[in-house]
Amino acid sequence: MAQKPSIPKGTRDFLPDEVAKRNYIFDTIKASFRKYGFEPIETPSFELTSTLLGKYGEEGDQLMFKIFPRGNKLRPLLNATETTIDIISKELNIDYNTNKISDKALDKLTNVFVNRMAEEVLRYDLTVPFARFVVQHQNDLSFPFKRYQIQPVWRADRPQKGRYREFYQCDADVVGSDSLIYEVDFILLFDEVLSNLGLKDFTIKINNRKILAGISEVLNASDKIIDITVSLDKIDKIGVVGVKNELTKSGFSDSFIKKLEPLFDLRGSTKRKLKVITEYLANSNIGLEGVKELLKVIKMVQNLGLKNAKLEFDVTLARGLNYYTGAIFEVKANGVKMGSICGGGRYDDLTGVFGMKDMSGVGISFGADRIYDVLNELNLFPKNVDASLDVLFINFGEKEQDACLKFIKDLRANNISSEIYPSPVKVQKQMKYANDRGVKYIALVGEQELEQGVIELKNMQSGEQQTMSLEEIITHLTH
Amino acid sequence: MAQKPSIPKGTRDFLPDEVAKRNYIFDTIKASFRKYGFEPIETPSFELTSTLLGKYGEEGDQLMFKIFPRGNKLRPLLNATETTIDIISKELNIDYNTNKISDKALDKLTNVFVNRMAEEVLRYDLTVPFARFVVQHQNDLSFPFKRYQIQPVWRADRPQKGRYREFYQCDADVVGSDSLIYEVDFILLFDEVLSNLGLKDFTIKINNRKILAGISEVLNASDKIIDITVSLDKIDKIGVVGVKNELTKSGFSDSFIKKLEPLFDLRGSTKRKLKVITEYLANSNIGLEGVKELLKVIKMVQNLGLKNAKLEFDVTLARGLNYYTGAIFEVKANGVKMGSICGGGRYDDLTGVFGMKDMSGVGISFGADRIYDVLNELNLFPKNVDASLDVLFINFGEKEQDACLKFIKDLRANNISSEIYPSPVKVQKQMKYANDRGVKYIALVGEQELEQGVIELKNMQSGEQQTMSLEEIITHLTH
Repeated sequence: MAQKPSIPKGTRDFLPDEVAKRNYIFDTIKASFRKYGFEPIETPSFELTSTLLGKYGEEGDQLMFKIFPRGNKLRPLLNATETTIDIISKELNIDYNTNKISDKALDKLTNVFVNRMAEEVLRYDLTVPFARFVVQHQNDLSFPFKRYQIQPVWRADRPQKGRYREFYQCDADVVGSDSLIYEVDFILLFDEVLSNLGLKDFTIKINNRKILAGISEVLNASDKIIDITVSLDKIDKIGVVGVKNELTKSGFSDSFIKKLEPLFDLRGSTKRKLKVITEYLANSNIGLEGVKELLKVIKMVQNLGLKNAKLEFDVTLARGLNYYTGAIFEVKANGVKMGSICGGGRYDDLTGVFGMKDMSGVGISFGADRIYDVLNELNLFPKNVDASLDVLFINFGEKEQDACLKFIKDLRANNISSEIYPSPVKVQKQMKYANDRGVKYIALVGEQELEQGVIELKNMQSGEQQTMSLEEIITHLTH
Repeated sequence: MAQKPSIPKGTRDFLPDEVAKRNYIFDTIKASFRKYGFEPIETPSFELTSTLLGKYGEEGDQLMFKIFPRGNKLRPLLNATETTIDIISKELNIDYNTNKISDKALDKLTNVFVNRMAEEVLRYDLTVPFARFVVQHQNDLSFPFKRYQIQPVWRADRPQKGRYREFYQCDADVVGSDSLIYEVDFILLFDEVLSNLGLKDFTIKINNRKILAGISEVLNASDKIIDITVSLDKIDKIGVVGVKNELTKSGFSDSFIKKLEPLFDLRGSTKRKLKVITEYLANSNIGLEGVKELLKVIKMVQNLGLKNAKLEFDVTLARGLNYYTGAIFEVKANGVKMGSICGGGRYDDLTGVFGMKDMSGVGISFGADRIYDVLNELNLFPKNVDASLDVLFINFGEKEQDACLKFIKDLRANNISSEIYPSPVKVQKQMKYANDRGVKYIALVGEQELEQGVIELKNMQSGEQQTMSLEEIITHLTH
């Protein structure tokens, strides 16, 4: 019985048209990365378990794809000095003689096996492998080291619309400098790449973790900062009263909410917001440092100018990743229902865990899958982004075929993609094939054309048909 | 304690210079694939175990990287109606109460776990996933379907020089036609791609599985054909007598070797070889069919001409993969110690296992890693293939920096990669950085240049230094 073919859930096949569109996005991003001085690196698809495990919190460890090793790896588990049943019973603290194993116990047993056996795991993001790379190759790199990396990552997440188990990340990072020039460069990069992709209306939100630390300091509540930013984020939707109600429901005291009150007024222009937050943070050194950095970055960006992006200070922007310590970014396409399409921020110590201290860095990531959906929705993919054939020659038989193959050789030498239908079947069938494949032109060389040394060229879009010499066709198609 | 960072054995990190060189190879191959009418597809990095397992023989099954599933998958193994010890004992037929488990038993136990648990495996090659893709998407494709695919594959092979556990394959295939035009196109493709990469001296070896089948028929020994081709292959090295001795040692009878004798004369020009083989196969229909196909392909190629490749009929070329049924190819770079750098062939039924019968196809593969090594050895990578920065501005302080950032913006707008050193440290340190990074030019904008609105540009290779306006620099660097 033949298998009905399918692919693992959460993964995707890409057809030629999709690959062409995706490459258009990747190539646009790469071109700008290069112009901004970032150089490409690549790391292996899987890393040692010890490199990645524990770097993304408990959820990350669970979502990491683990790889079976080859050969005899059960020895540590099934120790020769104990029976299998003994060691498993001890691990799980369960009496197996009752003949009952609960699902929970099985889960635990699975974990015991997996964690003892897996020596390698698929890349979960590009950041930790990058940190490992920097430390491992530090003697071959010049710092500040600016790299970009466009590779797939894997997460065993529950698949849903727009969330895949295999997807590409497009990252640029610089490590080894705390200069704010790089924050400025990344904002310009967001603006340039997204403008080059045809986006006209998008907002780069910026905040600074030091500002959030300052707010925590003022409120004396560092563990509550996420709850607070989440609530503040809703002001536009549910109003000040709504936010206050929510905070009360979440168990915050009236006096605490009172101390929070000035932040309810963090609306309007970035300039106005900066004034409010500066006053609010008057007694927090770290908070004021965050404001100062933010101000400097915004000024430099204004000085250089942006093409299409709006730059907006958003104090509710927190970003989950706990390694960020300075500026944080997020980009949203306006007028499209879609989460952030880019993000990033500064981190003070990414390489410390691998033994290299005091390497400040800052990086950004383009969400290629979301950008793809946005471009599709806004119909922004250029017409010439496709992988389809330029010229298909209709096959009229062996004699004509030999002539066509020579024409084809010359067309290809002029960078025009072309081929001949492989057999002299009915012209109708060949035309249908050309149509189905989205071929741009078909070329007809029958007996008469063969005699005159010409080619009948038909534009498949307009239907227009012309008799031309090979040289005329080359000129026509390359200009 | 910080971890000493490393990567799994058999995998590689690629530094910027290596990525640039690899991309040069991939881009060259892609450009020709496109011109020849092949369209790109991509498939997931892992497939369902049922899709790949059993498709590459026993060795392939063992070398496949298997992925741990999430959650409770031990249930089928640790059945609730039996104790763990019972079921494991039964699987292995071993008495665990003796407290002894041999390594062999452990291996077996590991296999039991792995085969019951793994639902997904990493891609082992691009061919089987392509077959799965064609069957799964057959309603969205037009046949003959021509695709190319450049993606990594994974094999848990013992790593050694030139053999990695993760490496890229660059494949082009066409399915849905038995026209020999495609064989011709693939030979032209080998010639074009390798010539474009700068190779001058390489040989495309061609044979046909039908010729090998014909020889088997003549000798009435279909199971011995590989032994025979392996021996014949040594004629140039050990001579006819040596080959005869070897065959005798391998247990072939004198009368069998006598029947084989005409093949010892398969030397000299392709024309001469074809004459000898035609006579030898006079009574084998399938053999003569193979010769006829071969002859037709060679004639068409001669008619169109090759740039640099030598095309050579080699009856000892067999290629291991048992799905080939017609033409087979292999390409060797002459004057370099290196196995074949490309290969391919025709197969009559690749998609049958997934339920789609009678789809003849033919495909080739470029060995990117080996081509990389050959280009390195022959020093054929073009000078401009690198990822290094065009212009680094030296940082003299805040005022100069602001001016430089504006210059940089204009340079980038003209596709010149540029940046400024992030802080005004000693010029010597900045120059060392420029040097280490392999920057092409440095730009100096001090107080004096700032006043005059000019830039001092230094060519880091020649040492030449010139005072220029921004416009002059743009002209200088883009022409």
